[in-house]
Amino acid sequence: MFAVTILGNNSAIPTLDRHPTAQIVTCDEQLLLVDCGEGTQLRIAQYRIKRSKIRYIFISHLHGDHYFGLIGLLNTLNLMGRTEPLSVYAPPELEPIIQLQLDCSGTQLHYELSFVPLQPGYSGIILEDKDLTVSCFPTQHRISCFGFSFTMQKKKRKLLPEQAKAYEIPAAYYGKLQDGADYMRKDGTVVKNDWVTLPPAKGRRYVYCADTIYDPELLPWLRDADLVYHETTYLHDLEARAAERYHSTTVQAASLAAAAAAKRLLIGHFSSKYTDLQPFLEETRPVFAATDIAEEGVTYYV
Amino acid sequence: MFAVTILGNNSAIPTLDRHPTAQIVTCDEQLLLVDCGEGTQLRIAQYRIKRSKIRYIFISHLHGDHYFGLIGLLNTLNLMGRTEPLSVYAPPELEPIIQLQLDCSGTQLHYELSFVPLQPGYSGIILEDKDLTVSCFPTQHRISCFGFSFTMQKKKRKLLPEQAKAYEIPAAYYGKLQDGADYMRKDGTVVKNDWVTLPPAKGRRYVYCADTIYDPELLPWLRDADLVYHETTYLHDLEARAAERYHSTTVQAASLAAAAAAKRLLIGHFSSKYTDLQPFLEETRPVFAATDIAEEGVTYYV
Repeated sequence: MFAVTILGNNSAIPTLDRHPTAQIVTCDEQLLLVDCGEGTQLRIAQYRIKRSKIRYIFISHLHGDHYFGLIGLLNTLNLMGRTEPLSVYAPPELEPIIQLQLDCSGTQLHYELSFVPLQPGYSGIILEDKDLTVSCFPTQHRISCFGFSFTMQKKKRKLLPEQAKAYEIPAAYYGKLQDGADYMRKDGTVVKNDWVTLPPAKGRRYVYCADTIYDPELLPWLRDADLVYHETTYLHDLEARAAERYHSTTVQAASLAAAAAAKRLLIGHFSSKYTDLQPFLEETRPVFAATDIAEEGVTYYV
Repeated sequence: MFAVTILGNNSAIPTLDRHPTAQIVTCDEQLLLVDCGEGTQLRIAQYRIKRSKIRYIFISHLHGDHYFGLIGLLNTLNLMGRTEPLSVYAPPELEPIIQLQLDCSGTQLHYELSFVPLQPGYSGIILEDKDLTVSCFPTQHRISCFGFSFTMQKKKRKLLPEQAKAYEIPAAYYGKLQDGADYMRKDGTVVKNDWVTLPPAKGRRYVYCADTIYDPELLPWLRDADLVYHETTYLHDLEARAAERYHSTTVQAASLAAAAAAKRLLIGHFSSKYTDLQPFLEETRPVFAATDIAEEGVTYYV
């Protein structure tokens, strides 16, 4: 399973029915948290997400609506008895903020918390774990800000059990077949790997663009992505305001998705001034049809 | 009006229907915020409290369930265009935590934010404004922690308009009468102040005991208070655990209220392990009858 669950789709000023940015990316058994606005731990509980399964946290930038909920979550994990390590990928200024708050409360974490600093402007792979690869790339915002690209690519080949049986290959050897090995029978004849396996399924890719002004330089990161999240803080008529505040509009997000030939687009980070989100769809879909509102509590498969 | 509105009555691990500690104390037109757990700004919006009217914030101690919501609130006040000054009374370690978070986001506050540091162990008056006096006193917790005593005492005498008219005192002089002045008529005769005014109504007092182990040294602060808030993290059977964690039980809170001859007791800061709060009342009321659960969203008059 490769999917993203939306915990918050609003911009900085929280409203009663929309919350600041946070998403859970699920890669089979692994959960990743992307941004963590205030109250994220409550959304996690509300949607019955297993918080203990979160292994990696990615913070795009240090505007509060993207990280004010982190210290509360880290604290609750500790109170709940977590012992598994946890890694936070974030701009380097986050570590002392968290550390100060742990220190002043006399909190000893019972789990290993490591910070991976994302230096301004950095792009490249930041994590490889099992079938998952995560890269980051800079977006253009008022402060240092990163998008994240999540690729799930099965490394093991797909075993064809009927064929393997037909060649009398012992089941204990199936793992090696999935790794690509041939099999030599006792009579010295060789069963070629591709007689009994198929190549791994094609990788799938989710790209989270965080907060950003309209920026065609993001295109290489979005190219052919299966699912793109791009902010649309404002409707089209507020293009000037969007630029001034380093945010994007409906038409801008849809144009990028179209230019990148992405398969699907999720839009979010809506300004609190909007109560009705329908116009966001009405403006994006004519430019890029496969667009959805990032609805809180909904899981979108990549 | 002198009242306290409960925004959160739970202890550290938030639940879906109870929230970490925060209270609004209303003194006529002034609003004071006491503690500010994560999500407090949402409760403020939910209960339609005018956040712009908050002038003073008191943070009892730096366990996260009492202050993690502060940075979000300060940020939202800024985004909403606040210009009135705001004072935060808190342990001194809070200031650099807030400052770091403002700095790393490039946030310029458009209002004056001042920190009044509460040094460990300090007790005494910390604020006098109009009819309100606020004192702090140390409680015994795992880290430096303060309770707060709020006294509302009308300073002006109560004018008796019929009497003042009968003595032909011009209305322009009524303010001076309320300040206690006599009035000399043109013929040189003196109207004594207490012929035309009554003394100010007796002061009323609300005492917030924050987090604390059972501590009879709090008694002088609670003596004769009109309303006392005392934590009851645990029921009576967990007295040993309460002591170990520097918290209190139902029976302990009720005993203190009774010994202090307080008029009424509010209990809160319930451990997340409890879903039913009725046993808290059943254990406190036999010891101190005038006890209520501090219900979220409810306003209690002092």
